[in-house]
Amino acid sequence: MKIKYELLKNDGKARLGKLHTNYGTYDTPMFMPVGTLANVKTLMPEELKAIHSAIILSNTYHLWLRPGEDVVLHAGGLHKFMNYDGPILTDSGGFQVFSLAKKKDITEEGVKFKSHIDGRELLLTPELSIQIQNKLDSDIAMSFDECIDYPVTHEYAKASTERTLRWAKRGKDVHSNPNQSLFGIVQGGEFEDLRKWSAEETVKLDFDGYSIGGTSIGEPKDVMYKMISYAIPYLPQDKPRYLMGVGEPLDILEGVRQGVDMFDCVHPTRLARHGNAFTRCGKINLHNAKYKEDFTPIEDGCDCYTCKNFTKAYVRHLLVCNETNAGRLLSIHNLRFLIRLTEEIREAIKEDRFEEYSKEFIDKYDKKAN
Amino acid sequence: MKIKYELLKNDGKARLGKLHTNYGTYDTPMFMPVGTLANVKTLMPEELKAIHSAIILSNTYHLWLRPGEDVVLHAGGLHKFMNYDGPILTDSGGFQVFSLAKKKDITEEGVKFKSHIDGRELLLTPELSIQIQNKLDSDIAMSFDECIDYPVTHEYAKASTERTLRWAKRGKDVHSNPNQSLFGIVQGGEFEDLRKWSAEETVKLDFDGYSIGGTSIGEPKDVMYKMISYAIPYLPQDKPRYLMGVGEPLDILEGVRQGVDMFDCVHPTRLARHGNAFTRCGKINLHNAKYKEDFTPIEDGCDCYTCKNFTKAYVRHLLVCNETNAGRLLSIHNLRFLIRLTEEIREAIKEDRFEEYSKEFIDKYDKKAN
Repeated sequence: MKIKYELLKNDGKARLGKLHTNYGTYDTPMFMPVGTLANVKTLMPEELKAIHSAIILSNTYHLWLRPGEDVVLHAGGLHKFMNYDGPILTDSGGFQVFSLAKKKDITEEGVKFKSHIDGRELLLTPELSIQIQNKLDSDIAMSFDECIDYPVTHEYAKASTERTLRWAKRGKDVHSNPNQSLFGIVQGGEFEDLRKWSAEETVKLDFDGYSIGGTSIGEPKDVMYKMISYAIPYLPQDKPRYLMGVGEPLDILEGVRQGVDMFDCVHPTRLARHGNAFTRCGKINLHNAKYKEDFTPIEDGCDCYTCKNFTKAYVRHLLVCNETNAGRLLSIHNLRFLIRLTEEIREAIKEDRFEEYSKEFIDKYDKKAN
Repeated sequence: MKIKYELLKNDGKARLGKLHTNYGTYDTPMFMPVGTLANVKTLMPEELKAIHSAIILSNTYHLWLRPGEDVVLHAGGLHKFMNYDGPILTDSGGFQVFSLAKKKDITEEGVKFKSHIDGRELLLTPELSIQIQNKLDSDIAMSFDECIDYPVTHEYAKASTERTLRWAKRGKDVHSNPNQSLFGIVQGGEFEDLRKWSAEETVKLDFDGYSIGGTSIGEPKDVMYKMISYAIPYLPQDKPRYLMGVGEPLDILEGVRQGVDMFDCVHPTRLARHGNAFTRCGKINLHNAKYKEDFTPIEDGCDCYTCKNFTKAYVRHLLVCNETNAGRLLSIHNLRFLIRLTEEIREAIKEDRFEEYSKEFIDKYDKKAN
């Protein structure tokens, strides 16, 4: 079946909702861990359940190259292949084509580029992206879009946004997996008129949900926040809204404030592998020598496996010795941190005190901590 | 308390026994996973319990350099530091000094060498090795010995073996942790007279258990098997015998046949990180393209987490993409494989059919498989 979004209540523009999927019903706003290559790096499905993860993300571009969508199809789809019985969302491959490929040639047909693995020339089209995702059999597929650089001219952004809309329609026309939902993506760069136009026209195509794309690509925070505000008013209330690639606590709070329901980012797991941990007071880096004999958990009161079982001194030791268990323990903590944040956000919306909660969190959180 | 070995029964020279430790009673023969740096690479304590691991090993040399034995002491000992509530054995550092250090200078006092991490000049003595292990607070400590190269002259082996005995006595004299057992190590190289002498003299010092050292360092299999046979007759029946650094299934079978109770090796986890998996028919390498669409477990009938949840195709995919979860899944399988082997060995000894079991295993196991 297709996913179904149920709006439970608003607190300002912030939305408390439920997302009914093929693999259970989950509360929104939610944060979705990223499992690029059909696994969340260093973690197993049981660990994702233990941190109360709901939807996880996987990357069409990466799975297309390795192991190939047909291998996943023959395995019985992505859920069976990676043994994950929760909902899975796949992106369109668009972002990776634009960010990983060294040389790319964008035409109306699609994007020609060279594989980041073996330099092979490849062509990804809106149709192919959807066909691959149909085979991967994720629960939610994304339309193929151009992720516009920042900054670009209004002229470039307009032409690109119009093409992204044509691509969205072409992808929708070939979409053929009845158990898979399809999201449209709002582009438009930093331009108010283009974001509005993109949102309105994409909504006309009637997707199962809508993403706000082209954010978190190096633009200043205030520009990102404006990009959201330019698009959100034109998205329907009865469909989920997904802000792509955003995983900083303060950005999640801002997204929710504006009415976003879903977030994803590689940030928490990538930070983890470099020794960084989220805390209520900001990020800390466990490489720091001051943790050498710190026998307290990464964060007092955190309910994650890492904090319940290990000390900063131990995690630091593993990190200093390049043991992969360091990244594993920190990934668990960082993902749980963001998921707990969304749990608290939902509780706050329920009790009409989202702004109060948000202000309290932001006041305590040191952006410069490290 | 000190460990206590209880011999339950013999089947030929093979021994079925129980080892009573500070952290529970375990059956022997047993295989001990290696957790070099206070963690078994890619695994957490719960996963070690799930594969029915008993004693795990940690390395004195490595922990001395990082994080330093005082950090572990201040953490409350190794069990608390790494959150492992099963028994832990530490080696003496001798093997690492001899295998990792580039330049070393052996004197009666100890071994001067340069750290493999920062080139710092260090001196490890029999006393220091024991003092470090006392602080680490492992359940079983090892005497500091010289791991003799292969091959060496009888003259060199004799002088070295005599010095190792003097070192064993010096270590025993400073050993001061009442909750920690201390093992002596039999050396003597490939020479029958020296192995006999080393065993008899070491036993006179009255340790809590005895290791057979200096094996698995590049000598031919028949030489290794002889080294065991030269020492074993002189070891007491009421103490455990530990064959160091041995983790090949066929070598474990031979060790048990001769009366060994304990084995350890980095082999199963190191093989795992390189994509190799033990099976009853020999080792296979999951990089092999023939597994690309092989949707069966690594080994049918294996009860490990990996085999119960994932296919060869999936593990291969993770491996090809350099995802650390590949090493994790293969480590679980390989460790469980060796632990299951010891479970079956114990069952066979109990039923007086060890030779039969051993022959059956060896006949099926292809040494050249890969």
